Amino acid sequence: MSATFATSFFGANYREVEIGQIVHLARKKPFTLECGVEVTNFPLAFQTYGFLNASRSNAILVCHALSGDQYVCGDHPVTGKPGWWDRMVGPEKPIDTNRFFVICANVVGSCMGSFGPKEINPDTGRPYGLAFPFITVGDMVRSQALLLDYLGIEKLFCVIGGSMGGMQALDWATRFPNRVFSAVPIATATRQSAQNIAFHEIGRQAIMADPDWCGGDYIAERKYPAKGLAVARMAAHVTYLSQDALQEKFGRHLQDRDKYSFGFDADFRVESYLRHQGVSFVERFDANSYLYLTRAASYFDLTEGGAHTLADVFNGTKVRWCVVSFSSDWLYAPAESRNLVRALNAVAADVSFTDIESEHGHDSFLLDVPQFDATIRGFLEGSASLYGVG
Amino acid sequence: MSATFATSFFGANYREVEIGQIVHLARKKPFTLECGVEVTNFPLAFQTYGFLNASRSNAILVCHALSGDQYVCGDHPVTGKPGWWDRMVGPEKPIDTNRFFVICANVVGSCMGSFGPKEINPDTGRPYGLAFPFITVGDMVRSQALLLDYLGIEKLFCVIGGSMGGMQALDWATRFPNRVFSAVPIATATRQSAQNIAFHEIGRQAIMADPDWCGGDYIAERKYPAKGLAVARMAAHVTYLSQDALQEKFGRHLQDRDKYSFGFDADFRVESYLRHQGVSFVERFDANSYLYLTRAASYFDLTEGGAHTLADVFNGTKVRWCVVSFSSDWLYAPAESRNLVRALNAVAADVSFTDIESEHGHDSFLLDVPQFDATIRGFLEGSASLYGVG
Repeated sequence: MSATFATSFFGANYREVEIGQIVHLARKKPFTLECGVEVTNFPLAFQTYGFLNASRSNAILVCHALSGDQYVCGDHPVTGKPGWWDRMVGPEKPIDTNRFFVICANVVGSCMGSFGPKEINPDTGRPYGLAFPFITVGDMVRSQALLLDYLGIEKLFCVIGGSMGGMQALDWATRFPNRVFSAVPIATATRQSAQNIAFHEIGRQAIMADPDWCGGDYIAERKYPAKGLAVARMAAHVTYLSQDALQEKFGRHLQDRDKYSFGFDADFRVESYLRHQGVSFVERFDANSYLYLTRAASYFDLTEGGAHTLADVFNGTKVRWCVVSFSSDWLYAPAESRNLVRALNAVAADVSFTDIESEHGHDSFLLDVPQFDATIRGFLEGSASLYGVG
Repeated sequence: MSATFATSFFGANYREVEIGQIVHLARKKPFTLECGVEVTNFPLAFQTYGFLNASRSNAILVCHALSGDQYVCGDHPVTGKPGWWDRMVGPEKPIDTNRFFVICANVVGSCMGSFGPKEINPDTGRPYGLAFPFITVGDMVRSQALLLDYLGIEKLFCVIGGSMGGMQALDWATRFPNRVFSAVPIATATRQSAQNIAFHEIGRQAIMADPDWCGGDYIAERKYPAKGLAVARMAAHVTYLSQDALQEKFGRHLQDRDKYSFGFDADFRVESYLRHQGVSFVERFDANSYLYLTRAASYFDLTEGGAHTLADVFNGTKVRWCVVSFSSDWLYAPAESRNLVRALNAVAADVSFTDIESEHGHDSFLLDVPQFDATIRGFLEGSASLYGVG
């Protein structure tokens, strides 16, 4: 466990990136993925912030979303920009690293140093591509549990995350109820809706339609499905913003012109913005990881296809829950969180629920929403006092 | 004006299709498009249903949406399926062809026989591709006016359409107020929102990302951007359906399997459905037309970028208006129609407005919604009585 240089394959520009801390897990006995494949000695890249206390009771596991990674705060070594939750995590911030030991692991299937489709397949000496085994949200969570074992942390003070990170928080608190004191699923759902599944399918089809995807072998072929991945990101990005936020931010404003070009340039500012989102995503994300992670998110279903009710899943939960949704989020609408809260209430769980008024849509959990900060700060404060931390 | 065989270029399978009635317009003096390009002798394909009365006062112009065409009802010669509004137009139907003479023209820029990017450019002897001039909703409307001149119809009893067809109805009634007795804009807006523009941009980027698009010259190159166009259609199709309708119709049901494949097949029914929508669209629509028509829809703005207020635009209107929206339409939300109705009310226009309760989203205007049928039937009945028709 130390700063490690790993080969990174973003775009066709292969470069060495300092990935930070990487641990190799399942060295002694194999780790069986939910798809049935056994893996051994697989890498999990992670970052920590703050210090673990002597009783090892102040650990907060932050779970990142689809396109996130372990760089929660501070400067990101690849993008050079602040981490994705820099405004939430740090000294004196709502998740206060002066008090808490914050851990974030790059999920399996992703591309920032953890076991994922761009890593080298030891059987072939080439990047896995589509030979990479399927992973699930449960696999992400179980691999994070191995990391906690490695770090000597028996129980988390809190597990928290938004969107696909919220799915991990839900999975953690139900799969390992004795290892979690409190859980904060944000802007998420117990399973994806048909519309969620549909948008993810569009993204995958856009990537796989790109001939430079090469059936998943683009790294070995020294190509990259940049156009397909950019279209996928554009389609996803629109779903992260509310209609009102888009209208207020962009309206029908033209980009660098005062009349229509009568052409296919980015006449409108919103077009230019979306193209930029697509292009910059391609520079930092692996296309195959996008396929695998969207699939994992769509497969996630706490009820396992109705094999259990949510009441069964949560029955007897001792976890302290804080459920958060955002009023203008149409991707994981407040109704999804209300559904979750109803199930928790039905088993008399200790649950608080806040539907936060915000115009920013699904992306609210990443943006400046003071009431959200206050909710997280307050919940952690109260929970810490109950748990006897800090 | 007679049944005509035209070469059709759908997919890479070029075939002869009987396009029906085609008239060549602007034979004597050029038609100047809003982009400034002059065109002469350009084809407009159209269909008529029912009979024009002696006083030529019973004509209803139906305006089709982005992916529609002139085959409103009866069997479609290319798809073999019923026309897109077969349930609304026909004998005894709400738009009753026993009483009214219904006309629908394939809009300029489209691909069912009218002047569009797959037609042969006389200057080069090759299909236009991106050499095709830009067209606007105003150009669609002004070319339809030429068609009415040709047919000897001075004034329409009604102009009606949904979505981009609704934009044409709005444009008709404000551009040619003396040629329209009544207008029915359905599930539409006076200008596209930033979100509308964004979704169209995603579709265009998906098409242009496909190397088989060949910079727009795919016909000459004997290729076809089938994958890109399919992705564009999938992305658009999701916006046509409401979240609830998708959930009710598909939920998380699996397609032809009882457990996850742990693969990238269409595991979920909604994925299979979307793929089918993409593939079947490619068989009937021209990719460049999709680029041009989405652009035209995004350019549409009755206020011309704020140069006029809506009150200016509608001031003094003598047209009898019926505005229709659908409760679950999030692409052209009821708020857009309310905004339109407020402007009409502010100039004391004769306007009725119905926001129809329907769970089908934007596609409601094409589907079985009895209250919608009743609204159209009732409005036409009342208008016909006032106008002294039939």
